[in-house]
Amino acid sequence: MRTGDEALLTDFYQLTMLQAYFDEGLHGRAVFELFVRSLPPERGFLLLAGIEQALDYLENLRFGADELAWLHDSGRFPPDFVDRLAGFRFTGDVHAMREGSVFFANEPVLRVEAPIAEAQLVESRLINLVHYATLVASKAARCRLAAPGRLLVDFGLRRAHGAEAGLLAARAAWLAGFDGSATVLAGQRYGIPVYGTMAHSYIEAHAREADAFARFAASQPDNLTLLIDTYDTEEGARRVVELAPELARHGTRIRALRLDSGDLLDHARRVRRILDDGGLPDVHLFASGNLDEGRIAALLAADAPIDGFGVGTSLTTSADVPCIDAVYKLQAYDGRPRRKRSEGKATWPGAKQVWRLGGSAGDLVALHDEAPPTDAVPLLQPVMRAGRRLAPAEPLAALRAHAAEELARLPAALRTLDRTDSTELWPVRISPALQALAAELDREAH
Amino acid sequence: MRTGDEALLTDFYQLTMLQAYFDEGLHGRAVFELFVRSLPPERGFLLLAGIEQALDYLENLRFGADELAWLHDSGRFPPDFVDRLAGFRFTGDVHAMREGSVFFANEPVLRVEAPIAEAQLVESRLINLVHYATLVASKAARCRLAAPGRLLVDFGLRRAHGAEAGLLAARAAWLAGFDGSATVLAGQRYGIPVYGTMAHSYIEAHAREADAFARFAASQPDNLTLLIDTYDTEEGARRVVELAPELARHGTRIRALRLDSGDLLDHARRVRRILDDGGLPDVHLFASGNLDEGRIAALLAADAPIDGFGVGTSLTTSADVPCIDAVYKLQAYDGRPRRKRSEGKATWPGAKQVWRLGGSAGDLVALHDEAPPTDAVPLLQPVMRAGRRLAPAEPLAALRAHAAEELARLPAALRTLDRTDSTELWPVRISPALQALAAELDREAH
Repeated sequence: MRTGDEALLTDFYQLTMLQAYFDEGLHGRAVFELFVRSLPPERGFLLLAGIEQALDYLENLRFGADELAWLHDSGRFPPDFVDRLAGFRFTGDVHAMREGSVFFANEPVLRVEAPIAEAQLVESRLINLVHYATLVASKAARCRLAAPGRLLVDFGLRRAHGAEAGLLAARAAWLAGFDGSATVLAGQRYGIPVYGTMAHSYIEAHAREADAFARFAASQPDNLTLLIDTYDTEEGARRVVELAPELARHGTRIRALRLDSGDLLDHARRVRRILDDGGLPDVHLFASGNLDEGRIAALLAADAPIDGFGVGTSLTTSADVPCIDAVYKLQAYDGRPRRKRSEGKATWPGAKQVWRLGGSAGDLVALHDEAPPTDAVPLLQPVMRAGRRLAPAEPLAALRAHAAEELARLPAALRTLDRTDSTELWPVRISPALQALAAELDREAH
Repeated sequence: MRTGDEALLTDFYQLTMLQAYFDEGLHGRAVFELFVRSLPPERGFLLLAGIEQALDYLENLRFGADELAWLHDSGRFPPDFVDRLAGFRFTGDVHAMREGSVFFANEPVLRVEAPIAEAQLVESRLINLVHYATLVASKAARCRLAAPGRLLVDFGLRRAHGAEAGLLAARAAWLAGFDGSATVLAGQRYGIPVYGTMAHSYIEAHAREADAFARFAASQPDNLTLLIDTYDTEEGARRVVELAPELARHGTRIRALRLDSGDLLDHARRVRRILDDGGLPDVHLFASGNLDEGRIAALLAADAPIDGFGVGTSLTTSADVPCIDAVYKLQAYDGRPRRKRSEGKATWPGAKQVWRLGGSAGDLVALHDEAPPTDAVPLLQPVMRAGRRLAPAEPLAALRAHAAEELARLPAALRTLDRTDSTELWPVRISPALQALAAELDREAH
């Protein structure tokens, strides 16, 4: 995205509503909250990500000259409205949960308070950023829980949904506990460790597999992982054993072998034996190929001698849960709480706070100005005031450490991959005052 | 993406392989093909998209100064290798199917012939672009087939996986037969019709729903769709009937009402009756809210009086099939065909052509230099030579017309939403010469 460009990364109705707000002189302050309506059965919890990108978007939001010219030429808006957009800035206040936090349904993770036009325009992009990053962080957290102590690398750029998805996924996965990503640009942009060695095409470009191994070793003596399944996995492993003494004479240590097809458990066992028998007990095994947290858990439950996993498509598309019901809803306007009552989509009104009660007590969602519960931690913290961030972005490593603590604190039943109903394991209660407010709004006639 | 930036939008192993190719002096010409290994049961065919973006990427690919500096500073590569990347350009030849074409498993949709380093580096991004755009075009085609003659609008930016996904989805959906998108930037960038009116938050910002309707009508007299389900759908419809005479006096015509929650069939019938009884038979009904091709088909099968549909998350995440097995494989190096034989992942070797045989005869995948079958159409056409496109990009409207013709030509059994095994309905045969070549390569020792 270029600066200016991102202002049009919105739904058209945001602009028609903005025009109506301008026409009516509706400039009151609105409170919008971003939350997930319900968790799918495949997710016992969610891990928050994408807040940093959301704040960056808000802070830099403006309409570029090309975008204004296009809006003008579109004939869909009166010129005076387009002129006003030239000065558009986000001047609001934002509260957010810290990235890497565990959260549940009906808990606002981001609260925006701003003149209604500003808070409205940003809806589409805020959901777009936080929804996806959170999907991937939550999926990655499950992989991390399934593979304690094992190396986990994001391999999913190629089937992520576009470039930004690949980048956001690499960041979200690392935040959630992955060890790194294969995506080079994510390394440059976010300082994430970058992993990768060779593909089948490299092997195939050589007349013989053994030649390919030898040549690659000569070129990459300090980072040598060899892919052994291009033709026959065990045959590949035996070639490595044959090659190893010659490499050792040149001071080259083989770090790992990668398996990428077939029955990974069976191959890993056979290859491990070939390596051990061949005097290479220190060479690690790294597996990839259509892996997800469930397959990883099954491999480790069967004691597969695998030291690391590349997780690709299932991670970056969050393949079993490619979308969740993340929404951004008006909760108050001009000091008055609002409640949408559409069937199956009713919201809890008013600006809110989420309190983490500690232990197995779960969370309490309350109005933001209610008295704090005893010994509870407020999860929504001020992060932006009058359109400016209150502090520089936290280092990603700090957020990653926070995520690890969050996962460690989860009750055991939520740390499994089983389908769970988190509402029993981690109750999220709605405060009596909030319930009373909702009932009161329902009683009012419209 | 900035220019220069996109060169790092690749997997790290592409760079380590490039370094090895440089070190070894492996500069021979490689043939890579992009294809889908198998279709999931939810898809009887795929509709190709993303080729224009892929060619644009290839034509503009270079390493920017920041990217080179980062690679240098990473310490992962020798300086002379990084220096050589400064001059890196894609100088290869490309064949591709036309966007909007229907295709099936094992059919190359893109063939790249270039010095191996060039053809290798681009793997990750080429798959990233074509895989996702094709997913969405294929999903959108199913929606189009389910809703003949109805207005279809992409509403899915907010839950698309990042910004680029939202944009590519809007383009792919329009190409496949949607009428437009809510995504404003897609309108600017691709000239796609843009749709949208109001959200629940607009209604809620007003004390009374009737006030919101009247104010919006005053602001948007030429494009008036009113959202009626914020509080009570039928009550909302009755308010519209009450308001209509006053609007008519000001020359404002209500174009449509939008339903977004609850039982859409039931609401549409009730609202249609309210409108018809209220003298508004010309006001259209537009439905949205968790729709996909299956729900649309069910609504229309029940004769729901709905004139148009907004399809969001299920479209832009291709929710039932968020990924397919799209790959980019080395098929020849230095004039010699290559075959990967990994279990379950074996490839057909050599540069190939896909012939469409006509009628119900299906397709033939053959070596590119075999004699053409009688009356068959070659689907892969030259689109780039020596790194330059052979023609300017086709207008998107022309590709959209092509997609419509392709869909119209499909056999009836593939035009349904049923789970089908396309291999029986649209046979894709492998030519005897290609089969013989594969067998011959398998016989050779490695």
